[in-house]
Amino acid sequence: MRGLLEARDLDAALVTHQVNVRYLTGFTGSNGALLLTVAGSAMLATDGRYTDQATQQCRDLPAITTRALAGDLLAKAGNVGRLGVETHAMTVDAHTALAANLAAEASSTVALASLGRAVEQLREVKDPTEVDAVARACAISTEALEQLLAGPLVGRGERELARDLEWRMFALGAEAVAFDTIVAGGPHSAVPHHEPTDRALAPGDLLKIDFGARVDGYHADCTRTCVLGEPADWQREIHAAVRDAQRAGVDAMVTGAPVAQPDAAARQVLDEAGWLDRFTTGIGHGVGLQIHEDPFVGPRHLGRLGERSTITMEPGVYLPGRGGVRIEDTVVVGPAAPRVLTDTTRELLVVG
Amino acid sequence: MRGLLEARDLDAALVTHQVNVRYLTGFTGSNGALLLTVAGSAMLATDGRYTDQATQQCRDLPAITTRALAGDLLAKAGNVGRLGVETHAMTVDAHTALAANLAAEASSTVALASLGRAVEQLREVKDPTEVDAVARACAISTEALEQLLAGPLVGRGERELARDLEWRMFALGAEAVAFDTIVAGGPHSAVPHHEPTDRALAPGDLLKIDFGARVDGYHADCTRTCVLGEPADWQREIHAAVRDAQRAGVDAMVTGAPVAQPDAAARQVLDEAGWLDRFTTGIGHGVGLQIHEDPFVGPRHLGRLGERSTITMEPGVYLPGRGGVRIEDTVVVGPAAPRVLTDTTRELLVVG
Repeated sequence: MRGLLEARDLDAALVTHQVNVRYLTGFTGSNGALLLTVAGSAMLATDGRYTDQATQQCRDLPAITTRALAGDLLAKAGNVGRLGVETHAMTVDAHTALAANLAAEASSTVALASLGRAVEQLREVKDPTEVDAVARACAISTEALEQLLAGPLVGRGERELARDLEWRMFALGAEAVAFDTIVAGGPHSAVPHHEPTDRALAPGDLLKIDFGARVDGYHADCTRTCVLGEPADWQREIHAAVRDAQRAGVDAMVTGAPVAQPDAAARQVLDEAGWLDRFTTGIGHGVGLQIHEDPFVGPRHLGRLGERSTITMEPGVYLPGRGGVRIEDTVVVGPAAPRVLTDTTRELLVVG
Repeated sequence: MRGLLEARDLDAALVTHQVNVRYLTGFTGSNGALLLTVAGSAMLATDGRYTDQATQQCRDLPAITTRALAGDLLAKAGNVGRLGVETHAMTVDAHTALAANLAAEASSTVALASLGRAVEQLREVKDPTEVDAVARACAISTEALEQLLAGPLVGRGERELARDLEWRMFALGAEAVAFDTIVAGGPHSAVPHHEPTDRALAPGDLLKIDFGARVDGYHADCTRTCVLGEPADWQREIHAAVRDAQRAGVDAMVTGAPVAQPDAAARQVLDEAGWLDRFTTGIGHGVGLQIHEDPFVGPRHLGRLGERSTITMEPGVYLPGRGGVRIEDTVVVGPAAPRVLTDTTRELLVVG
């Protein structure tokens, strides 16, 4: 953080985006603010609900309990100079109140600036403990999926199946689900972000499941598509195209590669197979303390992949009214090749 | 909305807070913006993922598909004059980008102002369909709780019990849980917002459960505290104090009463019983499309209770290291008396 403050010519940072406060301090409450100075001092503020929790989770960090988190942190710290605030996450009203607060102190020389996505930038590269948490979330996810797919599926509703899968993840040790599970059968599989209904699965359906577990705050993100009974030719065809595109995208996720490269690699395969115009969503994103976080993968995204970044690769082909296929893995970027954390077959599984 | 715009001297409103977009349009996607003019025109913008969904959910509303939601809505609408934006929910960066966008159009005469919490204000009073959704969520919640408490409890872990309760809500028709279920046994019950652990319930424990179901986007919020086996005198005493305070608070929730009144009524009972200094959380809040929404109940809150507002009343007494009691209902404000939607006993249940 000190390096990022210096690079931005800031004397201090006020971190108010909760997930960033958690990342930097370990504090998991829902209301906290952190003041960091380039000189190395740090102080946390939270409200009365979380006083004990903050003390336990952040043993070496001075903390104050107050209702006016940001204002009281700054009052305590005195004139910190040029202060970066998280303008990408702070509301206009909160910013206005903070500025008014500072203006009311005649002696204050604090100047507000933007911290930008500095903490998000730090969060892109995971330390080994973080990779381990994502890996555990992924292992729980794939184990739960394998259990689910081993059982009977025909006749069951999408919603009931989603609950079943979530229940299995909890039983395997998930602290929460990473996001609302998507179970999409038959024509619903053509809807990229379908909300599960009570439609019963029927023979011949494609079955697309997008889901994940959360462990120690870290998320897993995985999608598999299978077919109920013998696949039709068109189902085989789009599945093979997506599988090959996904593999090409994953293979391109090596340390130092441009963020746009896995996107280009996957798109090229879809293009050659003639299905690129049926791919309509984002192709990948960082995953960690948030289910969607930096870096976002795509043709317009700049930067390079950092080692130990955990990122998804999720191309798809969607044929409205008929069905769709998406295959998604969470992988860790590595020097020669990435490591796939959602390690279960990507072949077209025939289930029943 | 037209009246609220006029009262704020605004010519148009740009609604970007998703829950407010949903409230006004029925659109449930995760990315939408709505432009309303005081003259009565309305237009929705969303991105490609939600084009079909927006058409289905908002049949009579013109909609555009774009990546630059706010910018393109304004470009389409032309010079709308004084435009209220949701500064309490919009980030500084989004506001800056919008202002820069407008400044770049030489001919634009749009002036940005704040819409304030106008939509939140509308949302305070529910229409009968909304009350019905909250009521169904509450009925599922209390039914699931009664099922859970009928079974054996001693020896079971908090986390496992939370999952069991959630599973029962899903089975009864919940579309989601309203928030992460709190199950707190023994000394953990003294922590107002305890996160469930694997601690096993033991005879003599207080057991505090704070939970709710979600139905059609609307939330339920309910807390009950029971005891495993014969209650000790101190457990009876704090439970009785909280029960009486909670009843006094609920009874004060009548149409037109000052928002501060139920708070005062409940606090008075706690004060007379000598436990007021052990009550450390908020006492009530609106509940609807969000689990916490306007109006917030408390000594410093202004305004009056509107008929058909759905609000919680949740006093508690927390004795660190020993245990705590909270009792919480979701009620509908009514002209003579409120209607309690989480209708299950508030007496000290002895369970096992």
